[in-house]
Amino acid sequence: MATKKKTIRVFAPATVANLACGFDIMGLAIDEPGDIVEITPNKSGDLFITKITGDGKKLSRNPFENTVTVSIAAFLQHSGLKQGFDIVLHKQMPLGSGLGSSAASSAAGVKAVNEFFGKPLKTKELVKFAMEGERVACGSAHADNVAPCLLGGIVLCHPSGELVELPVPAGMHLVVVHPQVEVLTRDSRAVLPKQIALSTGIQQWANTAALTSSLYTGDYDLMRLALQDLVAEPNRGKLIPYFTDIKSAAMQHAIGCSISGSGPSVFAIAKGLPAAKQTAKAMEAVCKKFKLRCTVYVSKVNRSGAKVLR
Amino acid sequence: MATKKKTIRVFAPATVANLACGFDIMGLAIDEPGDIVEITPNKSGDLFITKITGDGKKLSRNPFENTVTVSIAAFLQHSGLKQGFDIVLHKQMPLGSGLGSSAASSAAGVKAVNEFFGKPLKTKELVKFAMEGERVACGSAHADNVAPCLLGGIVLCHPSGELVELPVPAGMHLVVVHPQVEVLTRDSRAVLPKQIALSTGIQQWANTAALTSSLYTGDYDLMRLALQDLVAEPNRGKLIPYFTDIKSAAMQHAIGCSISGSGPSVFAIAKGLPAAKQTAKAMEAVCKKFKLRCTVYVSKVNRSGAKVLR
Repeated sequence: MATKKKTIRVFAPATVANLACGFDIMGLAIDEPGDIVEITPNKSGDLFITKITGDGKKLSRNPFENTVTVSIAAFLQHSGLKQGFDIVLHKQMPLGSGLGSSAASSAAGVKAVNEFFGKPLKTKELVKFAMEGERVACGSAHADNVAPCLLGGIVLCHPSGELVELPVPAGMHLVVVHPQVEVLTRDSRAVLPKQIALSTGIQQWANTAALTSSLYTGDYDLMRLALQDLVAEPNRGKLIPYFTDIKSAAMQHAIGCSISGSGPSVFAIAKGLPAAKQTAKAMEAVCKKFKLRCTVYVSKVNRSGAKVLR
Repeated sequence: MATKKKTIRVFAPATVANLACGFDIMGLAIDEPGDIVEITPNKSGDLFITKITGDGKKLSRNPFENTVTVSIAAFLQHSGLKQGFDIVLHKQMPLGSGLGSSAASSAAGVKAVNEFFGKPLKTKELVKFAMEGERVACGSAHADNVAPCLLGGIVLCHPSGELVELPVPAGMHLVVVHPQVEVLTRDSRAVLPKQIALSTGIQQWANTAALTSSLYTGDYDLMRLALQDLVAEPNRGKLIPYFTDIKSAAMQHAIGCSISGSGPSVFAIAKGLPAAKQTAKAMEAVCKKFKLRCTVYVSKVNRSGAKVLR
């Protein structure tokens, strides 16, 4: 394979995993924020991270430890390709925020190398390589961030490995509030129950079925009933300061509100931009009241997923 | 209200509740078997069960204990109507079979009285009265048999009380094998776990979401992945003789196979009538091999639900 000496830049969006009831199985992409990865072929045959911006020096520059390079290496190994790259990573979203920061970097990386080689694989086929980045970042190779990040839209990640792209109802908007507090991943994991009551499980799988139906039909009333998490939120909500207040404020205008991924970001789903803006305002007001610094994003569901920048 | 001296006859179909992954939340109606209820107004103002056929004398003739009369009484009380009826019940499906026998009788009863009074309520509104019959029959007022029995099709019964009518994919056929063995309801309840592992729950709610999606899109490959029950079937299957063999035989031709309701009936979903017939043949062959007497039904999903017979 001849080395084309050109830089490829890819933007990959933030993602909201779990979607309340869909704990561990669903995620969606939002238009902003997102990361940018640049890859430039080199002659060494190795992967180098030449620069990372926006991470406050928190990410490893070691290619065996960084999610981007691990994902790219998994792609290269699977494809039997030998090619070195110099890699620049622009982190444009907060780390450890529950917005799929590591997933965005991994997704952008594999999307970029696939583009470099003339798209030998379909976007869906890239998910498993980006999942290797997740394994390094989180200890488990879950798909609920990387799949919507690569594909865009709302994705159901079935345990079989099957990825189901669910429809996005007209008017669906996301509000994400990222409070500037640190929630350690080990804490947000430790509070999860190992066992749940059968009755709780029944409600949760009724909710995922109802949510799925509502996405096909655009029935926001049903979506409102479905967007209830009885498993993670009751436990993880306690780790997020003023979560109950933020959620109550959101629910004056929103269809549903819960924790994005393992938090601390809180997301709400609203029908239409005006309702989304009111939701954002109400959530932000709670943070201000309690002097909790936060960043607020209002966005449609991102439909295109990770995208090559020309 | 003047008493119109005419008999109203209603057929109500058998139903398959749970649908593998949809434990306690989903059910569907099949074309046969089904029960017939006849109501004739009387002048006493009371409900009388004048005749029951096909029950082997197992059902109570006491109107305070029989599911039909309890359901009709709930309808009359809610509507503030005073009217006596003589009621004839033709049981045309096996009792305690897991095919919603009590639900069919309740549904037929409330459908008939609603018809008698000129349809003051929509069919969906009748569900709650038929659920009162279920309370008498099973001890809990669950909707997953009565809702599809009244409405037809595939129904998601959300714990909020919301009933979601899901689409029926083209070609969907049901095979039901009713082995003539008795499984006591208390036994099939006693084997259910009170707690499940979170990891089991995650798989189950991924399955209900995937099943719901597959019904909208007609994706039978996804349906096959989704039709897995990790909660009831592993425990209740042990109560049904040769369940594993019957299921294995079914899965040579079917999309999915599990226990109908609390059993002992076993259902399979097949794509197209030829596959359904092959599935039925294979399942029946296993029963024959083990000298297990059984009745086999092959049917489309019933679309019309309980139906007034002219």
